[in-house]
Amino acid sequence: MINTSFILRNTLISICLAGVISGCSITPHQSKTLTIAQQGNFAAGGKVIQNAGQFDDTQLFNPQGQTLHGDHASVFYQIPEHARPYPLVFLHGAGQSAKTWGTTPDGREGFQMLFLRQHFSVYVVDQPRRGQAGQSTVAAEVLATTNDQAWFNMFRLGQYPNFFKGVQFSQDSTALNQYFRQMTPNTGAYDEQVISDAMVEVLKKSGDAVLITHSQGGGPGWWTAIKSNQVKGIVAYEPGSGFVFPENELPEPMPSATGTLSPTPVKMTDFQKLTRVPIIIYYGDNIPTEKNGYAGQQNAGQDNWRVRLKMAQLWVDKINQHGGKAQLVHLPDMGIYGNTHFPFSDLNSEQIAEQLSQWLHKNKLD
Amino acid sequence: MINTSFILRNTLISICLAGVISGCSITPHQSKTLTIAQQGNFAAGGKVIQNAGQFDDTQLFNPQGQTLHGDHASVFYQIPEHARPYPLVFLHGAGQSAKTWGTTPDGREGFQMLFLRQHFSVYVVDQPRRGQAGQSTVAAEVLATTNDQAWFNMFRLGQYPNFFKGVQFSQDSTALNQYFRQMTPNTGAYDEQVISDAMVEVLKKSGDAVLITHSQGGGPGWWTAIKSNQVKGIVAYEPGSGFVFPENELPEPMPSATGTLSPTPVKMTDFQKLTRVPIIIYYGDNIPTEKNGYAGQQNAGQDNWRVRLKMAQLWVDKINQHGGKAQLVHLPDMGIYGNTHFPFSDLNSEQIAEQLSQWLHKNKLD
Repeated sequence: MINTSFILRNTLISICLAGVISGCSITPHQSKTLTIAQQGNFAAGGKVIQNAGQFDDTQLFNPQGQTLHGDHASVFYQIPEHARPYPLVFLHGAGQSAKTWGTTPDGREGFQMLFLRQHFSVYVVDQPRRGQAGQSTVAAEVLATTNDQAWFNMFRLGQYPNFFKGVQFSQDSTALNQYFRQMTPNTGAYDEQVISDAMVEVLKKSGDAVLITHSQGGGPGWWTAIKSNQVKGIVAYEPGSGFVFPENELPEPMPSATGTLSPTPVKMTDFQKLTRVPIIIYYGDNIPTEKNGYAGQQNAGQDNWRVRLKMAQLWVDKINQHGGKAQLVHLPDMGIYGNTHFPFSDLNSEQIAEQLSQWLHKNKLD
Repeated sequence: MINTSFILRNTLISICLAGVISGCSITPHQSKTLTIAQQGNFAAGGKVIQNAGQFDDTQLFNPQGQTLHGDHASVFYQIPEHARPYPLVFLHGAGQSAKTWGTTPDGREGFQMLFLRQHFSVYVVDQPRRGQAGQSTVAAEVLATTNDQAWFNMFRLGQYPNFFKGVQFSQDSTALNQYFRQMTPNTGAYDEQVISDAMVEVLKKSGDAVLITHSQGGGPGWWTAIKSNQVKGIVAYEPGSGFVFPENELPEPMPSATGTLSPTPVKMTDFQKLTRVPIIIYYGDNIPTEKNGYAGQQNAGQDNWRVRLKMAQLWVDKINQHGGKAQLVHLPDMGIYGNTHFPFSDLNSEQIAEQLSQWLHKNKLD
């Protein structure tokens, strides 16, 4: 029962990590098993609220005098054998949870597994007021609003009910079913400061890390790096909001079919914190640009991203103007076509992962 | 870098699994690493609701004509190397999520890890309308009600602010902080049928399994076994509700300080399905019974369990009367003291896990 392929692979990893073979990466299929050194869960950050009065233990569910612990992040982490120095800390976007990084809608391994196999420690977060971190200090209504089709369009799978030609999403109905069921609501109002405060606490437990965000997680991502010097690099997939600019150097707001995208003004001292670490932003395909002549012809879901891609480019330029090292990658410009709003779980996710591995390596974050 | 302790352990496991050493179990500390063959996430079950009208993609968030996928369970699973034939499928209780089975409040490995180390495949579920499975087809209000102290008492940590003498819960303040932050609300009304319907679908993906429930998960657990013959055994930690009895053999309702506990009437043909598989129920300490003379002296949180322990004993007797194989273990009667409502994550959780391993082995479920 002795697993000789394990021994071989283990030896190869040792050689790689010893730097004997430069730039080497272990292809995920060489060994199907994954050895975990440690795994677990923790809550990070949050606050405690208290009701006035005296707790009466003969009326257990009378709130007077009682407390509530809420607004923390919930984290699941795995540390592989021979873990690289910086963990990857993943923060999902709107309507999502840690599951975003798990199994892809069409059933393949997600970034959580792909990067564990590459010997990164992986921390996947449910942000405050979401998923398993649902205990909020502010009340909310959860409306069972029918909006699958809106997300289908907004996430650039196509124009419902049609998928875009060449889209990197499985057209097997089980994939769309899994994708829709990955969504989960806010249990308290969305708040970038509450989220980034909790993320600062996550990093105190994970140690210095590379922060990887998606979509609405972009804004909290920048704020986390402003608040904490434990962020050593930021990777943002399709950031959707929270573009922070120096308060005296704001770009014009950008109207779109889904509302106006406005920059967030911040103090220069805060903005400059974002020039300290390498940053990369990725956007996928089917986003209208002046160059591709789609302006005016696209659907509302696509138009949402037109202004975000534009704002993100201004943001990257601003970061670099102030001495930073930010980069924006528009995947079709690199010959990578068909990506939706979720490049990391699209059909070509292994190619997207390889892009990320190379960036991490180039920036000495691996 | 060749890990000889891995080889030794791997060989020992092979000998154990070959049955050469009877009843052997691998102590969790022999090797710190854990080898995973497969890991991932999926949504199971649920329904789709649709709003009347026609979807208008120029008004993305107008719900007319749109659908919503909700009421599914969300599952995270891990399959270890040399996995035993039946996976363990874990269903949490009220105000909890899959995290219940993860790291204990005081930072030790939970049942998820302990049983993975024992080579069981482990599936941890967020039930419909909870945690990462938050997308519900019915709306709800999430109230940020202050109720930490109620749960402290209800979960039998003590009588707030005092812990019970000898309680199996860490009195380090970080443990209580983690414990309170493990709670997460319903995002739609609790419904035993919605939950058990989704659990049936979970089992279609996991394969025949042993179902392990906690607290409010008890009722959905019995219903899952009524609906699906893929349940091969049931382990219920402190079941709190949903005690199903044949409709013509109902025990009297039992009043308590937290309300009246009533049995759930079911058809005899349904009840009899529960006589097909081995069932074990565990209750911990500090529950008032006539025997221990606490009746009338206990706090409301404890009194809640007085009637549940009593009802559970009647239930076990009823199952056995009808040809089943159910057993109730009241841990103090076995000389195991101090357990709270969460025996599997208490300080003596390894002893509780060993109890479970022995029961699984005795019932040929391992």
